[in-house]
Amino acid sequence: MTVRVGVIGTGMIGTQHVHRLAREVVGSSVAAVFDVVADRAAALAQEVGATSAGSWAEVVEDADVDAVLIASPGDLHAEQVLACLAAGKPVLCEKPLATTAGDALKVVQAEVAAGRRLVQVGFMRRYDPGFRDVKAAIDGGAIGEPLLAHAVHRNASVPDAFVGEMSLTDSLVHEFDTFRWLFGQEIVATTVVAVRHSPLAAHLRDPQIVLLELGNGAVVDAESFVNCRYGYDVRCEVVGSTGTVALDNPRTTIVLGAGRRGETVPPDWGVRFGRAYQDELQAWIDALAGGATVAPGASDAWDGYAAISVAETAVASFGLHARTEVQLVERPDLYIREAGR
Amino acid sequence: MTVRVGVIGTGMIGTQHVHRLAREVVGSSVAAVFDVVADRAAALAQEVGATSAGSWAEVVEDADVDAVLIASPGDLHAEQVLACLAAGKPVLCEKPLATTAGDALKVVQAEVAAGRRLVQVGFMRRYDPGFRDVKAAIDGGAIGEPLLAHAVHRNASVPDAFVGEMSLTDSLVHEFDTFRWLFGQEIVATTVVAVRHSPLAAHLRDPQIVLLELGNGAVVDAESFVNCRYGYDVRCEVVGSTGTVALDNPRTTIVLGAGRRGETVPPDWGVRFGRAYQDELQAWIDALAGGATVAPGASDAWDGYAAISVAETAVASFGLHARTEVQLVERPDLYIREAGR
Amino acid sequence: MTVRVGVIGTGMIGTQHVHRLAREVVGSSVAAVFDVVADRAAALAQEVGATSAGSWAEVVEDADVDAVLIASPGDLHAEQVLACLAAGKPVLCEKPLATTAGDALKVVQAEVAAGRRLVQVGFMRRYDPGFRDVKAAIDGGAIGEPLLAHAVHRNASVPDAFVGEMSLTDSLVHEFDTFRWLFGQEIVATTVVAVRHSPLAAHLRDPQIVLLELGNGAVVDAESFVNCRYGYDVRCEVVGSTGTVALDNPRTTIVLGAGRRGETVPPDWGVRFGRAYQDELQAWIDALAGGATVAPGASDAWDGYAAISVAETAVASFGLHARTEVQLVERPDLYIREAGR
Amino acid sequence: MTVRVGVIGTGMIGTQHVHRLAREVVGSSVAAVFDVVADRAAALAQEVGATSAGSWAEVVEDADVDAVLIASPGDLHAEQVLACLAAGKPVLCEKPLATTAGDALKVVQAEVAAGRRLVQVGFMRRYDPGFRDVKAAIDGGAIGEPLLAHAVHRNASVPDAFVGEMSLTDSLVHEFDTFRWLFGQEIVATTVVAVRHSPLAAHLRDPQIVLLELGNGAVVDAESFVNCRYGYDVRCEVVGSTGTVALDNPRTTIVLGAGRRGETVPPDWGVRFGRAYQDELQAWIDALAGGATVAPGASDAWDGYAAISVAETAVASFGLHARTEVQLVERPDLYIREAGR
Repeated sequence: MTVRVGVIGTGMIGTQHVHRLAREVVGSSVAAVFDVVADRAAALAQEVGATSAGSWAEVVEDADVDAVLIASPGDLHAEQVLACLAAGKPVLCEKPLATTAGDALKVVQAEVAAGRRLVQVGFMRRYDPGFRDVKAAIDGGAIGEPLLAHAVHRNASVPDAFVGEMSLTDSLVHEFDTFRWLFGQEIVATTVVAVRHSPLAAHLRDPQIVLLELGNGAVVDAESFVNCRYGYDVRCEVVGSTGTVALDNPRTTIVLGAGRRGETVPPDWGVRFGRAYQDELQAWIDALAGGATVAPGASDAWDGYAAISVAETAVASFGLHARTEVQLVERPDLYIREAGR
Repeated sequence: MTVRVGVIGTGMIGTQHVHRLAREVVGSSVAAVFDVVADRAAALAQEVGATSAGSWAEVVEDADVDAVLIASPGDLHAEQVLACLAAGKPVLCEKPLATTAGDALKVVQAEVAAGRRLVQVGFMRRYDPGFRDVKAAIDGGAIGEPLLAHAVHRNASVPDAFVGEMSLTDSLVHEFDTFRWLFGQEIVATTVVAVRHSPLAAHLRDPQIVLLELGNGAVVDAESFVNCRYGYDVRCEVVGSTGTVALDNPRTTIVLGAGRRGETVPPDWGVRFGRAYQDELQAWIDALAGGATVAPGASDAWDGYAAISVAETAVASFGLHARTEVQLVERPDLYIREAGR
Repeated sequence: MTVRVGVIGTGMIGTQHVHRLAREVVGSSVAAVFDVVADRAAALAQEVGATSAGSWAEVVEDADVDAVLIASPGDLHAEQVLACLAAGKPVLCEKPLATTAGDALKVVQAEVAAGRRLVQVGFMRRYDPGFRDVKAAIDGGAIGEPLLAHAVHRNASVPDAFVGEMSLTDSLVHEFDTFRWLFGQEIVATTVVAVRHSPLAAHLRDPQIVLLELGNGAVVDAESFVNCRYGYDVRCEVVGSTGTVALDNPRTTIVLGAGRRGETVPPDWGVRFGRAYQDELQAWIDALAGGATVAPGASDAWDGYAAISVAETAVASFGLHARTEVQLVERPDLYIREAGR
Repeated sequence: MTVRVGVIGTGMIGTQHVHRLAREVVGSSVAAVFDVVADRAAALAQEVGATSAGSWAEVVEDADVDAVLIASPGDLHAEQVLACLAAGKPVLCEKPLATTAGDALKVVQAEVAAGRRLVQVGFMRRYDPGFRDVKAAIDGGAIGEPLLAHAVHRNASVPDAFVGEMSLTDSLVHEFDTFRWLFGQEIVATTVVAVRHSPLAAHLRDPQIVLLELGNGAVVDAESFVNCRYGYDVRCEVVGSTGTVALDNPRTTIVLGAGRRGETVPPDWGVRFGRAYQDELQAWIDALAGGATVAPGASDAWDGYAAISVAETAVASFGLHARTEVQLVERPDLYIREAGR
């Protein structure tokens, strides 16, 4: 049984998702595609044998669409997800779930009202083998009690459209989900620490350090640096009471030459996390094919709400130059599952 | 269009292939399955919706089988591959292509007579990202002229059925293909060097070192150790005139604990090369779906013939306690392709 | 010409210094020794052919003592250093220079009044080959403009006497000197971040994270963890506008065994920095033998004053739960040297 | 008590030894110096306050010389060492002890006749922390029974005077001592394997692989490459029945930049083994100061005889294109010490 997916948004990541669903994921096909750039959507639809829809709502309502993947601009996510919920269709929404905590909360409330989870949020790191090893080491007791973590998240560069608070809402939002997941704790407060700006990206406040306080008192210091120039570099070390576990970039071949021992740093997130994206899609399709509505262990609407709430708090913290507490509603029973999931 | 595959042999690797073709490879299905252990084959066939064939010949002749995958015992390979050729069906044969160079040569001659290549041999390392990086570094000039290489191939342990010359014919045969491919040269002579036996596997001559001389004078020393106990460990360093390129095990998370900084060594080939097996199958299916009969860059019948010829020579070298030259027929035009392929 | 050193304090580090000066450093001898534990001092004096002095003042005034090394409890340092200055003798004082910024300032003022530098402070990391490589990489432009740094400083455990703010005043004080030196900037503010305590050392606030702001806006986050259990671990990464440079533990031999690839983590600071201590002493003796009063590049009284001022500020910051600014007097001309020294 | 050393030969390594003995080693002075380039010797003698001798024999006979260090051309070593023995003076002879096994044997016989060991051979690797860790891992049982080893020994380039068999007699001779020492076994046979020559040093047979068979059947494959261009690179892996231990270059700081993660490879042996040379000298001086005539664990005359015997055999093996057995006399009781020394 093939899961027929409708894809809303065919920018860079949306196009990648269409190609993966059509060619690299087992058990899926792309049934319908929509983008405001109609020509692009039409060409892509033709390429994979899908319908080119006239609006995103058409995709949601299409009887040939079993599930929806949303890769549109972030400020449209909440409305589109809500429409999927109204239509009773499973939906994988690229991060962020919404651009405000309030909008994300509406999604949570809609799911609670419906009494079942249909929403999955695209925090693909939960499918990266490295991050999964870190999670397994913590859960397996390899480091004792987890107490703190250090994290870096660096991009070689960002497009001109990357401005303002996007390093918090678009880039570090991955860390907000990652460390909630790794520690099995909510983030309860954030502090943004201003750092000397890189002279190579003077229009941004870049790099910066964000402190995350978790519910049990654990702390994460996370560096965001979106113009580090040398490559794409996501690493972390989780420190426990008896040991630590660290994620480094995948080892590549080692070249000895000209006085140096060198390895390649990933050039971008597509190279670093390409496999995680594919495994995320495969797990989603497998879950749907098996009758479930979300994949086990994936980020759900609550996770998406929590992550954007933290991002919003971090933005406020930057403005206030002060530690700021995250305000979450009480977690509904629908989202309460086993500890350390 | 789905490529319908018939699978002959459902031991460990055959069963893995069936599961991959049925579930993890895009564009394939398993149409028919045969094994001499009929119950096992029947159960597997039912699991994936395939026919359970009464003989391997039935699989080959089945009109619903577009292509054949052979994972039977090695001494049956040549006959089965020849049957596929007679039926005009593409075939992916697990290594070795045959257990004697003479039998492998029959396959080559049959293909030459038919005037087209249908046979692919399962040297899956050519699909491992690490080995591909090594190949790319050499071909890209990163190390100057390649001159020699060091290789190790270690298994934690082997089953009781692993006896006699199998470390040459079953284990190091991978290196025979790997270094022919990496250097773009035939192996022209081998020398087996006896080494003090491990007291933990005294019935085997284990470990041992095999020297491989390539057509252009380059040399490879390859260690085989099938009872190294600590894990599965395949590594190499290719040394060129201005630098070297080395393949190490994939980096995992790093755990600091109890006075040690540690990484996990792969426990077995399934973990180390699972992805390479899958990518090998996907490339084969993609090639067939696209109208080709073998995947570009894969090991073909000539490669299979050359590898088993080297293995046979190595066995002779061990018996003679002397350097022994590999005797190959002239390479038919059918297999002459671009340099350094 | 042999430099005759008087040593005040023969606890663990003092005894090591006596042995090094007597046996491992070229050009030095130990002329006199004092400790409040008279027996210990007497035995050590006899062992190395030195006088056992009746008081620390006797060591300073001894005509056979060319220079003084102070390894007494920290709260005695300032008074003893001032006595050395009064006697016109070069002095190498173990860190900290004083236990209050006010006392350290008296040393600075005494030197300024005398018009020359006689005081060196025992921040031995400036002699560690790894830290020197980091400094050279920064100064050589390998990372562009340095913008921020991450640091960890972990001990397997600490003695019972290690209490209160000692993780700031005794342990992280090394980082305070290190990053002033690496960045060539004063630390202008500190923030202590409380972290979930390790259950294995519940009487300490351990681990903790301290943020250091430098004069040019660069920021360092430094983890202190004095009961990490697994070993002694000092590492850092300095992040610049075009690259980073990282210090890891020295590589040891690599053992493959029981499914793991492992290296040893240093067990304690004696193993990790033993060579740095020796090189520090040798550089000091060489400088004195050559007619200088302090070694080039070593930490001087100003550095000692700045480091303890930062420590004092960090302690205040912890009490206030707030970012706290470091208050330094204007740097006297005596200590103004080339940029980036 | 200062050990007064006479130094014969003030080329590159001899000059380094003079400087170390005069300045960096505790307890030694340089009493006399000789070189055929009289001006160079005179200048060096003046620099360190030594006598400039008129002949090497004068150095040996000088009443102010307690011990002799020989760093002259290798073909003079045996005669000079024998003169030291005749004079009853301890002598540290740079490798090789002699340029023929026959001459080295004369030294052994002279020591046996005298009934005591006075000769130490400058195989400094036995003082390198890395190699000592490898030895300790083997002796401590970390890898089970040692069975084989892989080794590489590469120089960036060699001077024009480096010709003929020097890669065996001058370069790999270090490995001959190293693996005798690590395995606690004599090398009983060698085979030189010709390899495609580097086009960048076409006048040399470079690189090459030498197989060493040890008394208990263990085997070492050792690569010599004296024009590898990229740096100085000495590494090895010793493989045992339950694990392996590997020596890599010392870790340096890690620079991330321009898409690469890089470490520096040592440029030359002076950088890589400078500390080993110093520790070797210090251990020798300490032993002499303590009344011994050779340092514990150092290479002695027997080791020097064995190493040059292996080198001579390797040269013969190359000429014969065949495995060649090493012919050693029976080991005199004088040199029989504890197993695994």
